Amino acid sequence: MKSPAEERVVPVLHRTVTPGRVTLVGAGPGDPDLLTVRAAKVLMAAQCVLYDHLVSETVLALVPAGAERIYVGKESGCHAMPQAQIAETLVRLARGGRHVVRLKGGDPYVFGRGGEEVEALVDAGVPFEVVPGITAAQGMSVMAGMPLTHRDHASSVVFATGHGKEGAAESDWIALARPRQTVVFYMGMAALPRICERLVAHGLPADTPAAVVERATTPQQRVIVATVASLPAVAAAQGASAPALIVVCSVVLLHERLGQAAPADVDTCVASLQAA
Amino acid sequence: MKSPAEERVVPVLHRTVTPGRVTLVGAGPGDPDLLTVRAAKVLMAAQCVLYDHLVSETVLALVPAGAERIYVGKESGCHAMPQAQIAETLVRLARGGRHVVRLKGGDPYVFGRGGEEVEALVDAGVPFEVVPGITAAQGMSVMAGMPLTHRDHASSVVFATGHGKEGAAESDWIALARPRQTVVFYMGMAALPRICERLVAHGLPADTPAAVVERATTPQQRVIVATVASLPAVAAAQGASAPALIVVCSVVLLHERLGQAAPADVDTCVASLQAA
Repeated sequence: MKSPAEERVVPVLHRTVTPGRVTLVGAGPGDPDLLTVRAAKVLMAAQCVLYDHLVSETVLALVPAGAERIYVGKESGCHAMPQAQIAETLVRLARGGRHVVRLKGGDPYVFGRGGEEVEALVDAGVPFEVVPGITAAQGMSVMAGMPLTHRDHASSVVFATGHGKEGAAESDWIALARPRQTVVFYMGMAALPRICERLVAHGLPADTPAAVVERATTPQQRVIVATVASLPAVAAAQGASAPALIVVCSVVLLHERLGQAAPADVDTCVASLQAA
Repeated sequence: MKSPAEERVVPVLHRTVTPGRVTLVGAGPGDPDLLTVRAAKVLMAAQCVLYDHLVSETVLALVPAGAERIYVGKESGCHAMPQAQIAETLVRLARGGRHVVRLKGGDPYVFGRGGEEVEALVDAGVPFEVVPGITAAQGMSVMAGMPLTHRDHASSVVFATGHGKEGAAESDWIALARPRQTVVFYMGMAALPRICERLVAHGLPADTPAAVVERATTPQQRVIVATVASLPAVAAAQGASAPALIVVCSVVLLHERLGQAAPADVDTCVASLQAA
């Protein structure tokens, strides 16, 4: 005996020979070597990819030449496709019987709005999988030499956003201004002066070390270390701009000793995986 | 002309034919498919691996059969090798001219004490590289269906520890008890009642949804959803035990809809990488 729910579902499943599905893939910070093994395999077998502004060229290069690529944008203030339309497109393509790869910078569940996209898939009855990715703060911590937790500096780590929701609750600043934690702000450069001012206004000592890490993990990475009071002026004087992460914690002082260069054999490594 | 620093360094470099080095590798949450591509390649070429309690058997299986494996422990309250001795061992093996792989569960810079180990290497003049890994909270978020950030639930995410430093500052609880953030406690099961009590004492509403995710990302994963007030009793009644993550945020309510099973083709995927 079938339940009413099964009665509803079965005709949909029979509509296509191969039922479609969507895989949300975290593209990591940009270096294809920092993809997860699963993400790399999914990309190398992809037939149709929807990708964001923050996905690097070298990651996209893993997608087979014949695959369809759909750019859905999300540059600051300039969305090629609104969020609702992205979800609709995923559902429509999957219902057409395709395996759609939704490729998002970093990790789909850390500031990626992946949860909203998966909810839309669930509502539409489209099977999904999510593959996590190295988020920007993790790639930054390794390459800039700023461990996210450290016995001498931070017993917890916070990932927050800096993009100017005007009405950001004061409660957020109370939590962010506490000592002994590493706070990493994503998408914060436009709001850098306000972020630093709010942290100090909520009790964080003005001499707390803080840094801007521009183009983290890329060969163009630049690290600017100052204090939470001086960082806006120092970063402006040096012409710092997005994409960049803002890191607040004394752990930024480890940068000079623990920073590292990109490994020399990245290309070889990826090439051997592609050949697999 | 050589600077005094160069004069000091050169004899050390000439002491061995192939200078040794250490690569700290994040082993991720356990599934080898969630290693980064770089981590998988480093492991498959390893000659000598120092590994922790939290590293899974399936990840260790990537290490070549002939490689030396050194277990350094860190089960709760039972360290096979104290931290200082781990650092000394890394330095000694690398000075012997070997490429040593230091394999740590999750991400070396998120509760991995990786920063301390790298500082010891820098002090000893041993070249190092750090490879990030998917941290337990990320693997959990994907498999248990609890996005770490979400427009409707959390605008930031915090990773904290629950293991009972008796003197944990009250300031930590002030930051952790704020609304609109996802807090994930690592190593918190022994302190679960105290964590929940402290959060409520610092103003978090007692009916805030909270969950224990036991053996996150493994086939044995179990999710127990309750409120921050009821979670200790509910988890105890169900016999929940470590290893487990504690998640505090309304985002845990998405678990039933967004949770997913491990992909069926994990073994194939890893096998093809090993064959590469």
